[in-house]
Amino acid sequence: AAAGLAAPAIAQEAPTVTWRVTSSFPKSLDTIFGAADTMARYVSEMTDGRFTLQIFPAGELVPGLEAADAVASGTVEACHTVPYYYWGKDPAYALGAAVPFGLNARMMNAWFYYGGGVDMMNEFYATQNLIAFPAGNTGVQMAGWYRKEINSLADMQGLKMRIGGFAGKVIEKLGVVPQQIAGGDIYPSLEKGTIDAAEWVGPYDDEKLGFQKVAPYYYYPGWWEGGPAIATMVNLDKWNELPKSYQAVLKAGCVVANTDMLASYDWKNPTALKNLVANGAQLRPLPQDVLSAAFDAAAATYAEVSASNPAFKKIWDSQVAFRKDAYLNAQIAEYNYDVFMMAQQQAGKL
Amino acid sequence: AAAGLAAPAIAQEAPTVTWRVTSSFPKSLDTIFGAADTMARYVSEMTDGRFTLQIFPAGELVPGLEAADAVASGTVEACHTVPYYYWGKDPAYALGAAVPFGLNARMMNAWFYYGGGVDMMNEFYATQNLIAFPAGNTGVQMAGWYRKEINSLADMQGLKMRIGGFAGKVIEKLGVVPQQIAGGDIYPSLEKGTIDAAEWVGPYDDEKLGFQKVAPYYYYPGWWEGGPAIATMVNLDKWNELPKSYQAVLKAGCVVANTDMLASYDWKNPTALKNLVANGAQLRPLPQDVLSAAFDAAAATYAEVSASNPAFKKIWDSQVAFRKDAYLNAQIAEYNYDVFMMAQQQAGKL
Repeated sequence: AAAGLAAPAIAQEAPTVTWRVTSSFPKSLDTIFGAADTMARYVSEMTDGRFTLQIFPAGELVPGLEAADAVASGTVEACHTVPYYYWGKDPAYALGAAVPFGLNARMMNAWFYYGGGVDMMNEFYATQNLIAFPAGNTGVQMAGWYRKEINSLADMQGLKMRIGGFAGKVIEKLGVVPQQIAGGDIYPSLEKGTIDAAEWVGPYDDEKLGFQKVAPYYYYPGWWEGGPAIATMVNLDKWNELPKSYQAVLKAGCVVANTDMLASYDWKNPTALKNLVANGAQLRPLPQDVLSAAFDAAAATYAEVSASNPAFKKIWDSQVAFRKDAYLNAQIAEYNYDVFMMAQQQAGKL
Repeated sequence: AAAGLAAPAIAQEAPTVTWRVTSSFPKSLDTIFGAADTMARYVSEMTDGRFTLQIFPAGELVPGLEAADAVASGTVEACHTVPYYYWGKDPAYALGAAVPFGLNARMMNAWFYYGGGVDMMNEFYATQNLIAFPAGNTGVQMAGWYRKEINSLADMQGLKMRIGGFAGKVIEKLGVVPQQIAGGDIYPSLEKGTIDAAEWVGPYDDEKLGFQKVAPYYYYPGWWEGGPAIATMVNLDKWNELPKSYQAVLKAGCVVANTDMLASYDWKNPTALKNLVANGAQLRPLPQDVLSAAFDAAAATYAEVSASNPAFKKIWDSQVAFRKDAYLNAQIAEYNYDVFMMAQQQAGKL
């Protein structure tokens, strides 16, 4: 009886909780999938193994693009995904990840953690039976791989391009024909010429897929992904059942994943970029008229969506207000430090 | 007896641990001091209040610049400080924070978490009876406040400037006379003309001290602080006594503080910058010949220190190798995205 009294007391204080977390990514993406693993490792270590997140690669339990739905319905407790995948259900999802010409990675963190962004997104996510926290960022992505050079806006007309989500809705206005193609099918589609161009992520992830062999022109910047945030989304009922200390543990684990993923990309991309160029990738900046037309197309899209979607409008207005001041401030200390250092790099002095 | 058996079992699994953490900063610096508070709040919440960090402002237990010594000797268990404060004991400390023309904030994280930086610093810190983890970053700082304009390198000659630590050693080579002055004494010293210039942090922290009233020229960038990392330093014996789960909790708390502080600055600086300019601050870029001379002076200093200090050399060589490739990579997607956005800001389109 004594032991019977003691055991529940311990259990009450630190219950064993095992969650299934479905990732929207394959294990081969060690950058993105790796951040979920890091989150799980921290959560387990912090709780002496009492709170366990089992991370499943995309497709093992749930298809990658259905992760949020599986969480909302309670099929799994949580997922590690990119909120913009679900923009078709509601464009407001995209604002929790990245939209064209949105905030960069540091600005997203500022907005999330100090600008009320996490709370604002969760006000929306609650309508979806979800709660979510930032849990990764890739930094500015590349604009992808092109079979032919893009010399002006006219060259975008009729371009069949693998590009996902909300960005596809914007780039359509430039005459591009967006295609939804899974990661593994991009290479053969480019090789056969079924598509003319494809965006994936950035140097490190792209290098593994060898795109330079079939579409050598590697354009930048990826104007639709200035600082895409990955999220850990949790079923709202499961979240509310979690002890307060485990909620704090999971939130901290998400911050670790957020910081870890960007550090991983920032460490790995420089070497990968050099490898890609050595292996035939031709680096090209997108022409200014393409960027300007895309900016105007994005602005028109935001106006359209905001007119009929108050949740989107509220969140986007908040991001826009910060974007304006943040990109003023960024021109002073950050820009001038980095540009001086870049000049030293070009002069061979670093 | 039954209760007597049960209690130690619980205690063994989750002991009560209370640590005293001395900050090198006053509470009024809500950005930096605030990150230590955030770390403490997370650590407490994650452990249901069993592991408590009591954060003390500078001077209450230990003077701000003696925090690391107090930790090493066991007077307090931990501190929240800037490692470069201790460069006089050994210049290798500075590499855990910032050195002139070093890595920016994102690059510091990449180096710390993926480039072996945390482990490399801890190999050195172990010789000091310390272990430390990154726990904050300010981003690129400003070059400070000047009573007169700096039009060329000649204007630096004989300039009495409040500037701390390792940067003082470098800026001396430009003819500047570095002064060590506590934060609260800077304003009267500038007002009286005892000093000609002073660096503090950046717009948000600087605005509170009203420097523009006595030294209106606000220069950028702070070439000695491209991404200064703040650290939580722990007494090595106390660290080793900590249960593994609390070690993980503290490490996660440090990552939260690291990310939180940069987000705090990035959120607050843009508004502060606008306020400062509205209140008379005159923004000025440092002349290129000043930056170039400072870069060469820094390179000479690194060669001097490396020649006699193997620990410094090992760590600095690791940072330099990454710096070269990171500032190549940064010129592609990140630079071109941000510059396009800055141009839109200047055109009034954001």
